Amino acid sequence: MNSGGDQPGTPWDATHITEMCARRAEWLRGEGHSADVVMSSRVRLARNLDGMMFMPKADRAQRERVLERCRAAILESDLAPRMLWVDLHETGKAERLLLVERQLISRSLARGKQPGGAGSKDEPRGVAVGLPDEQFSIMVNEEDHVRIQAMRSGLCLAEAAEHASAIDDQLDRRLGYAFNDRFGYLTACPTNLGTGARFSVMLHLPALKLTSEIDKVKHAAEDMGLAVRGFYGEGSEAFGDFYQISNQVTLGRSESDLLATMQREIVPKVVEYERRARDVMLNSRRRSTEDKVFRGLGLLRAARLLSVEEAMNGLSIVRLGVQLGLVHDVDLEAITRLILRIQNAHLDVTSPGPKNPAARSGARADLVRRTLSATPGE
Amino acid sequence: MNSGGDQPGTPWDATHITEMCARRAEWLRGEGHSADVVMSSRVRLARNLDGMMFMPKADRAQRERVLERCRAAILESDLAPRMLWVDLHETGKAERLLLVERQLISRSLARGKQPGGAGSKDEPRGVAVGLPDEQFSIMVNEEDHVRIQAMRSGLCLAEAAEHASAIDDQLDRRLGYAFNDRFGYLTACPTNLGTGARFSVMLHLPALKLTSEIDKVKHAAEDMGLAVRGFYGEGSEAFGDFYQISNQVTLGRSESDLLATMQREIVPKVVEYERRARDVMLNSRRRSTEDKVFRGLGLLRAARLLSVEEAMNGLSIVRLGVQLGLVHDVDLEAITRLILRIQNAHLDVTSPGPKNPAARSGARADLVRRTLSATPGE
Repeated sequence: MNSGGDQPGTPWDATHITEMCARRAEWLRGEGHSADVVMSSRVRLARNLDGMMFMPKADRAQRERVLERCRAAILESDLAPRMLWVDLHETGKAERLLLVERQLISRSLARGKQPGGAGSKDEPRGVAVGLPDEQFSIMVNEEDHVRIQAMRSGLCLAEAAEHASAIDDQLDRRLGYAFNDRFGYLTACPTNLGTGARFSVMLHLPALKLTSEIDKVKHAAEDMGLAVRGFYGEGSEAFGDFYQISNQVTLGRSESDLLATMQREIVPKVVEYERRARDVMLNSRRRSTEDKVFRGLGLLRAARLLSVEEAMNGLSIVRLGVQLGLVHDVDLEAITRLILRIQNAHLDVTSPGPKNPAARSGARADLVRRTLSATPGE
Repeated sequence: MNSGGDQPGTPWDATHITEMCARRAEWLRGEGHSADVVMSSRVRLARNLDGMMFMPKADRAQRERVLERCRAAILESDLAPRMLWVDLHETGKAERLLLVERQLISRSLARGKQPGGAGSKDEPRGVAVGLPDEQFSIMVNEEDHVRIQAMRSGLCLAEAAEHASAIDDQLDRRLGYAFNDRFGYLTACPTNLGTGARFSVMLHLPALKLTSEIDKVKHAAEDMGLAVRGFYGEGSEAFGDFYQISNQVTLGRSESDLLATMQREIVPKVVEYERRARDVMLNSRRRSTEDKVFRGLGLLRAARLLSVEEAMNGLSIVRLGVQLGLVHDVDLEAITRLILRIQNAHLDVTSPGPKNPAARSGARADLVRRTLSATPGE
């Protein structure tokens, strides 16, 4: 456990990823404002270095130069008690997948792919992660040169935005961003022009799903220019009734305006809908709600083979059951931790057996069964 | 509890049906030869009274006369320690359904319907049941005037046939059967001509189902002139992987020949196939077998709403689990008792709440959960 990374000032590197993954991720802590519905808040800023070719046009040498400059700027800054720095082009697939599962990097950065599909795993690119809490990460050479993201548990966009902004200021001083008085921050994709900011919240909406009101909420959000995505962002399924809601367009609206609308109007309204649906489930459909909750818990405690999808759906309904006061012998924290630990790469790190789908399915079931059979606190 | 029916010589009547239903049915005792696969054996004899119009042609007065003669003959005979006699045209639907669920009468006798759909619940008809073990019943004015059936747990056709034959002899002396030297016993439907005997076994074939070999076995049985039916006979689904196999044609084969073929050749072969499939499940697919078994048990122990179908399927897989030695904390006897107790009419008798599908679904789940959560022997 003791390694170079433990010396002050020395960054952790890819060799420490598995060590980090044994810990809890801040954004899945399950606490904070409206944490019964809002799992986490996330602010992402898209930035590019002034005077450097943007990613779609940059050749390998230019990308390497961007990576070097960003790595140096990040590691010189005083952003976290300890920094993890990973050169992703020199890192194995398993480690990259771990970072994806912890939502510290995007799938496309893991693959080294640009929008449109160009690129490969050898593309020069990297990520910095603030330790020990993983409250932020900085992706380098994703779609933009720099993508800063700050994460918080619960509904906490303002604090996440402040954090992202503080990181942004430090990096701007060292790197110098491409900025235009008319358009604001310049980005590779025009949808990110302006503030370059995306605000997103991960919501747990099992009651809206079960009462078949989820589509109404999705359409209403989309009408307000918001995107609704699954647990792992763009293109992912809403496993376990976890939904990410985020703004789509950043041009022409101030950052503070966007943030205030999300934090004070839209998200509280969805939270209110979900809570009302939970009340209905508990008071008007108690028997069928208990049936669903205890079937889910029964499945997790019984299965000897479990897919990620089944596990996520089970954990979702049990999380609801705990919050409705129906399930008393399961720890909310255990559920939240399992959400990460059942993912493929996390499972591979923690289980000793062979790494194939059948073995994972067994190891996943064993992990879930043992975790949920133990009395709370064990 | 003390009633006219408890006086020696006085038959029990419809008022005692619920009392009877609190008891175990002999044919679901779960013991006897090859009881790991063969739930029960059943011999049915179709008989008609000489000189009386057969059912399809008989008018109401003639049917009443048949019923009177049969009732008298049955109750005069010394067939069982105590007899239940039920005039079905004077009995409520709930009681008739209870008798169907215990497989003491057919669905068509319960409804008063003849093949083709004629008839009504007012048709004069009845049933005698040998108590306390319910090892036989005698239906009067079903498709034939008299249908004697004797039931045993396990693979036990010979003993059931002897029992049915002994009843048959007693009734023949008192009633005088329609018999023809060329055709044998005369019956309403030509498929029953000759011996008038149907031999059937109820098999539990979960492994053949799960290994997808069940269709092969069904086709092989059908090629040998056997019928394969579900738990509740003709037209019923094979809920819970319980299958009834019986001979189709009785003309031109001696009773003893038919019986020997079923008892010594066909059924043992199916038993052998099922056991081999169970071995494969246990030895070559242990993890996925455990998964199926424990999911089934988990469902039964968790659900707050349960349909008959789900309950039967769950009980089936748990019964397999107990017999494979995977499940240790469930009593085989409890499973076998539940097979009857989860049926609608049995449930209505034992649960106090309202009698509608939703209430039954809840009561069924409660019954199953409590029964299977208790430690064995409780």
